Amino acid sequence: MGALHEGHLALIRAAAKENHHVVVSIYVNPAQFGVSEDLASYPVTWDTDTAALAKLDRELANDGGNLGRISAIFAPTTPDMYPSGFPGQAIDSKGSFVTITPVAEVLEGASRPTFFRGVATVCMKLFNIVQPERVYFGQKDVQQTVIIRRMVKDLMIPTEVVICPTEREHDGLAMASRNVYLGVRRRQVGLVLNSALRAAQSAYRGGETDRAAILGAAHNVCDITMRAQMALKPSERALFEIDYISLADPDSLQELDTVDLSKGAVLSGAVKMFPVEEPQEGEDLGHSGGPAVRLIDNIPLPPKPA
Amino acid sequence: MGALHEGHLALIRAAAKENHHVVVSIYVNPAQFGVSEDLASYPVTWDTDTAALAKLDRELANDGGNLGRISAIFAPTTPDMYPSGFPGQAIDSKGSFVTITPVAEVLEGASRPTFFRGVATVCMKLFNIVQPERVYFGQKDVQQTVIIRRMVKDLMIPTEVVICPTEREHDGLAMASRNVYLGVRRRQVGLVLNSALRAAQSAYRGGETDRAAILGAAHNVCDITMRAQMALKPSERALFEIDYISLADPDSLQELDTVDLSKGAVLSGAVKMFPVEEPQEGEDLGHSGGPAVRLIDNIPLPPKPA
Repeated sequence: MGALHEGHLALIRAAAKENHHVVVSIYVNPAQFGVSEDLASYPVTWDTDTAALAKLDRELANDGGNLGRISAIFAPTTPDMYPSGFPGQAIDSKGSFVTITPVAEVLEGASRPTFFRGVATVCMKLFNIVQPERVYFGQKDVQQTVIIRRMVKDLMIPTEVVICPTEREHDGLAMASRNVYLGVRRRQVGLVLNSALRAAQSAYRGGETDRAAILGAAHNVCDITMRAQMALKPSERALFEIDYISLADPDSLQELDTVDLSKGAVLSGAVKMFPVEEPQEGEDLGHSGGPAVRLIDNIPLPPKPA
Repeated sequence: MGALHEGHLALIRAAAKENHHVVVSIYVNPAQFGVSEDLASYPVTWDTDTAALAKLDRELANDGGNLGRISAIFAPTTPDMYPSGFPGQAIDSKGSFVTITPVAEVLEGASRPTFFRGVATVCMKLFNIVQPERVYFGQKDVQQTVIIRRMVKDLMIPTEVVICPTEREHDGLAMASRNVYLGVRRRQVGLVLNSALRAAQSAYRGGETDRAAILGAAHNVCDITMRAQMALKPSERALFEIDYISLADPDSLQELDTVDLSKGAVLSGAVKMFPVEEPQEGEDLGHSGGPAVRLIDNIPLPPKPA
């Protein structure tokens, strides 16, 4: 989708290590926007993206440890990708679709009912066009990784799905294109989600397998952070709302009451950062004046051998 | 789906002419049966099918005009084809699906709402497993051909779709696995659909482009045939019901008021043959005692150059 950051570059580095050719797709897919979501305001960053890729390609060429470099950037137009016409973003749109349910209906899909239909369909097209031996996705979008793996398995797509770890800022914030909208004040408070998930991860590492115990640790972090913000003046605080914190099966993303240690689980969450109140003189509010930003993050809980 | 007849063999002959390897898939796909349709009673004809394929393979080997022979029969099990479990045949079944709308919703899809979802999904899997340069389908199932062509185009599947003409009995009845259920009495009357479509084709060839004129010619044949049957005794007649006769756009299968001569059209229809009344002593009622049989047929109306 463009707006490349270190997370995307890490995927390309991983691909160059084990493949002779790397194709980078950059396509802002309108099917991944809901009818009420603003495609027109999505950042178009072609010049900075291609500059970053050119720089990375030189880095890959200079590192003897790589099999390949960036052989192509695949940047199609919407008429290229939807040769019968773009079918629209409504739930009942008519067109050619790949749907992967029920995993597409939970978590991020609960509030965006056509999002993963758009993801699965456009990935099917990309895979058929490029015919890659391997495809690389980031763990950051965990539901996307589960859906792509399920699609490849169920529809027998002849490719190998490689999932790369989430790239993070030094303090743990997951890299995301939309982080630029946060500004300074919300940037720190936005860490609440990662801190909450890490608290839950610690509970699991400590031996807890029960939903209430694991997620209770996460909610406790959220509550403490919220109380600390509420104690500040409106000109200093950053308010937020937890959309969900989930403890789910790693293959189906269905919610778990208890973690099966032979399978492990996925901790994931979403937090909505509200626009700041009473901006201070000269305050960096983030790109576009700091609109509401929804952040997601996740931590896989690995199986524990018996 | 097995129950091979000359129509299937013609597809294999066409494939052997222009490909080094021919893979024949035989799979009775449960997703192509509705919840109220009886999968268990579908004929399983493995022994006669493989005997017919062995005979055809020798024919192909002896004919110097072929590039290839039958390299493999692909006969998977349902656990092979649905590795996450068979999702069921209900409209709201959860699973991994390919849907091609609105073309899947008209004609045959109107009475079988999950049928073409089952077709498109299983063909996607077959294509990904076999990775064929070309796929061969019969014109007989015209809606299937339109859906597969649309799926290949919209989802960029790297294969070429070849459509072979409908194979017919000497009197014009379209070859179909289910013809064996007709028996002698209904076999003759079942020609009504082909006769009706041919009358409509003649009207188009004669210069008609108007829906009422073209389909009127078809309905006239149906009415005459019905009156002739009604004049017979119950022990001699075979009653039927026309499900639909359609004049549709060749790419979308949407109904047409007027044929665009630059595009042409597709005439298609379905007729339900009721079980015969008052069977006569020793009468051949067809396989399984001659249950109700639904026959389909179609005739493409080619474009007419200006």
